[in-house]
Amino acid sequence: MVTVEILAIGNELLIGDVLDTNTNWIIKKITGIGGQVNRSVILRDNLDAIATEIQSALQRKTEVIFTIGGMGPTVDDMTLAAIAQSINQPLEANKEAIAFVNQKYQEFAKKGYVDDSKMTPPREKMGILPMGSIPIDNPVGAAPAVISKVKESTIISLPGVPRELKEIFENTLQPILKEKFGEIFFLEKVAIVDSKDESVIAPILNAVSQKNPQVYIKSRAKNFDIDAKFKVTISCCSSFKKEVIQAINKAIQDLRQELGNAGISLDYIE
Amino acid sequence: MVTVEILAIGNELLIGDVLDTNTNWIIKKITGIGGQVNRSVILRDNLDAIATEIQSALQRKTEVIFTIGGMGPTVDDMTLAAIAQSINQPLEANKEAIAFVNQKYQEFAKKGYVDDSKMTPPREKMGILPMGSIPIDNPVGAAPAVISKVKESTIISLPGVPRELKEIFENTLQPILKEKFGEIFFLEKVAIVDSKDESVIAPILNAVSQKNPQVYIKSRAKNFDIDAKFKVTISCCSSFKKEVIQAINKAIQDLRQELGNAGISLDYIE
Repeated sequence: MVTVEILAIGNELLIGDVLDTNTNWIIKKITGIGGQVNRSVILRDNLDAIATEIQSALQRKTEVIFTIGGMGPTVDDMTLAAIAQSINQPLEANKEAIAFVNQKYQEFAKKGYVDDSKMTPPREKMGILPMGSIPIDNPVGAAPAVISKVKESTIISLPGVPRELKEIFENTLQPILKEKFGEIFFLEKVAIVDSKDESVIAPILNAVSQKNPQVYIKSRAKNFDIDAKFKVTISCCSSFKKEVIQAINKAIQDLRQELGNAGISLDYIE
Repeated sequence: MVTVEILAIGNELLIGDVLDTNTNWIIKKITGIGGQVNRSVILRDNLDAIATEIQSALQRKTEVIFTIGGMGPTVDDMTLAAIAQSINQPLEANKEAIAFVNQKYQEFAKKGYVDDSKMTPPREKMGILPMGSIPIDNPVGAAPAVISKVKESTIISLPGVPRELKEIFENTLQPILKEKFGEIFFLEKVAIVDSKDESVIAPILNAVSQKNPQVYIKSRAKNFDIDAKFKVTISCCSSFKKEVIQAINKAIQDLRQELGNAGISLDYIE
């Protein structure tokens, strides 16, 4: 499985002004195309902290590293400078990126989104990339997304405004994602188990997991209550759809049997 | 300011089944009592990854490290084992914690939440702590929270079920938080700025920030639109309430003036 890490950047996330929903959105997408997100981090707008984190991800030979946020015109937007530092490349005005930003402000001025279209240092900043990095079209914002390749890793830098991030991911990023992740099939089922007590189903899940190493089985902890039921997720991922379906069905069959042996019913499968 | 890091643990977070709202909840609380959250991480249920992350936080001399999740009876709940590994302590059955879990299952059995109250290995697991760690009352769940002190750092391990986490934080954890954070005053104001274009206000915010180093000023990037307005947050934190209010007022005054010089109005303050 292609390994993925996500780095969301911005003080607003770490003082609690903003709940980070971007990371969860990307995690779902990556899981759906068969990638494995190993880790996600939120950092403040601090150049060294961001650069150190990217270096760590590169040292772990993470195949795809997403950065979210810190791509705008303000001084505290420093994602690209941190990437440059972490991959030992100078920052340079990227002709294509500058032309992109310029074009965007001309469009925005026509639409009345901004007062004028002239390039200023804060606007130009969004076209200054680590040398060798590539700008990617942002269908709705002014700052291009940026791809930086280093050895076995690809760093994909997306803006933090949710609408921009989603538009880029769903549109201009698709060819790169297809190339990286190929065609993978992911399936997840949720079993509703009629037990109030996770400590009772713990050894059962463990036994079923050992019998089905290809399948990932996990119970969801919840409040104790008189009518509590547990959700158990059973998921599997492979290039072969048939293999995934067979593995999930086999694990559910084993789970139903082991639960039955302990006098617990598997109510239904979602 | 007391430095804080948060580590949320659980595959369910990194396959996208669950949006992590616990971290944001704790961040808000910590910001409110004057702590500075420098970083938050989500990791999978992997012993070495969790232990390595805790070690990194300790190396950064982080004063308070929160772990969230991985405290339950299942085999994939391994937070306490990871802490033991990261602080070089063996795991041991903690008498007080075992008695706590035992007591809880007796209560749960009486209420009909579980079928019987007898201690089993999965239940006992929740009372096995790193040597020297201290269990803290969990008013609603079976697993105690755990405090582990190492040199200048305090690791606070909370369960991942939101209701349990919140009850512990608001109740049994308060004396420890008061001891760590003291009495701190935090204030944040939001200025609504009548500008559609972050690239125009970027240099203004920079100038105001330089004039007001004690105050933290940040614009919130958003979609381009014909009637877009920018939110600018202005926040400050100190042991002295009067100092905080004066600093915020001074920064708002400077912001209003600098914006005015550029022909931009500060619409209102929230």
